[in-house]
Amino acid sequence: MISIIGRGNVATHLYKAFKDKVDVIMVNPHSLEEIDYKSELILISVTDNAIKEVAGNLKPSNALIAHTSGSIPLKELEGVSDNIGVFYPLQTFTKGVDLDYSQIPVFIEASSQENIEKLRFYASLFSNSVAFADSGARKKLHLASVFACNFTNALAGIAQNILKDTGIEFKTMLPLLKQTINKLDSLSPKEAQTGPAARGDSKVIESHLEMLKDSPHLYQLYDILSKIISQSNS
Amino acid sequence: MISIIGRGNVATHLYKAFKDKVDVIMVNPHSLEEIDYKSELILISVTDNAIKEVAGNLKPSNALIAHTSGSIPLKELEGVSDNIGVFYPLQTFTKGVDLDYSQIPVFIEASSQENIEKLRFYASLFSNSVAFADSGARKKLHLASVFACNFTNALAGIAQNILKDTGIEFKTMLPLLKQTINKLDSLSPKEAQTGPAARGDSKVIESHLEMLKDSPHLYQLYDILSKIISQSNS
Repeated sequence: MISIIGRGNVATHLYKAFKDKVDVIMVNPHSLEEIDYKSELILISVTDNAIKEVAGNLKPSNALIAHTSGSIPLKELEGVSDNIGVFYPLQTFTKGVDLDYSQIPVFIEASSQENIEKLRFYASLFSNSVAFADSGARKKLHLASVFACNFTNALAGIAQNILKDTGIEFKTMLPLLKQTINKLDSLSPKEAQTGPAARGDSKVIESHLEMLKDSPHLYQLYDILSKIISQSNS
Repeated sequence: MISIIGRGNVATHLYKAFKDKVDVIMVNPHSLEEIDYKSELILISVTDNAIKEVAGNLKPSNALIAHTSGSIPLKELEGVSDNIGVFYPLQTFTKGVDLDYSQIPVFIEASSQENIEKLRFYASLFSNSVAFADSGARKKLHLASVFACNFTNALAGIAQNILKDTGIEFKTMLPLLKQTINKLDSLSPKEAQTGPAARGDSKVIESHLEMLKDSPHLYQLYDILSKIISQSNS
């Protein structure tokens, strides 16, 4: 039995990932009295700032208490129970967008080897990829995922804006975006890099910067990313 | 019959895309005498800087002469022939990485409606998505693709670097990257945006910037992208 505290994207998707595999309930953070303290696992899946408060309001029990945040260290739960852990699913969760839960890597950490094995058991109920990551590694993983996921989506938004008024639909770019990622199945990012900065084509780079001169943020962004690409190529 | 001049990634993939559909030969830019001037279409698929020179060295013929560059305007070919055009496949080409050519959008432009229809015919031999784009729209499309493709790949490289020394393999992040793009099938980039900047989570943003303080480029990059996300959210 698992109790998931939260009502956001992560809580909702974890509930769906577990629900055909094990008894699971979802508890609103404002209705903690609904928690089943006979649960073997209580997952705190609330915003980072609220984790400590929610954990502090839990009643004593035998449950393993774990949060699901990438950036909060395990020690944030110290004092709450002897059995604490972290259960961090590496994925971008959006309500209403279906996911293949078996493909979601889960990174776990806990206060004892026994608790690590418990978390590994529960994660393996839906995921094919479960690995240990201590708080330091997980923090780097979270930072890496901001670059690779959140910022990649922001670049897609920028591309969409650039296409505004051209009559070309942003959707036309999706095969290119998918192939950009699919290439990474067989090539490293360095091997997969293409484009003007990778070719050292300063004429194209200059003409692109000229097009961006009225958007200081985009100009800087283009300039920095081109420099990063040309440096990693040299 | 098509003659493709070039020996790079784009030329190689265009040759493969056409070869089961139509007579096609690939000609080394240094051996222009191998061109078959009975070709209906001569595609100049060389680096941007070399297009004008290669075009100037072609013998007079009835062939439609088109380049394949995103950033070079049609008028670069003016004077070479009355029948000129642009045949721009929007994809990231890497030798040795297979592609589903039917998924590659081709953007065409030409000196006459008849030539546009010719290019549409040839593009449709392999692509399900053929559209007209004038030189201005194509230049914006190329800029958009640098952001959405080349820079996205650079972000993947940054993520890989951040994971160095954590013991976590970069490959573990690929399901996240794929889902980041797959979400855009049903959501706009704005709707799909997640992460600390989208949530306005300044505590996480500050701790990430702190982690990047010894890498000025990455620090600036994180800062600018977070600002772009929070501005487009407000």
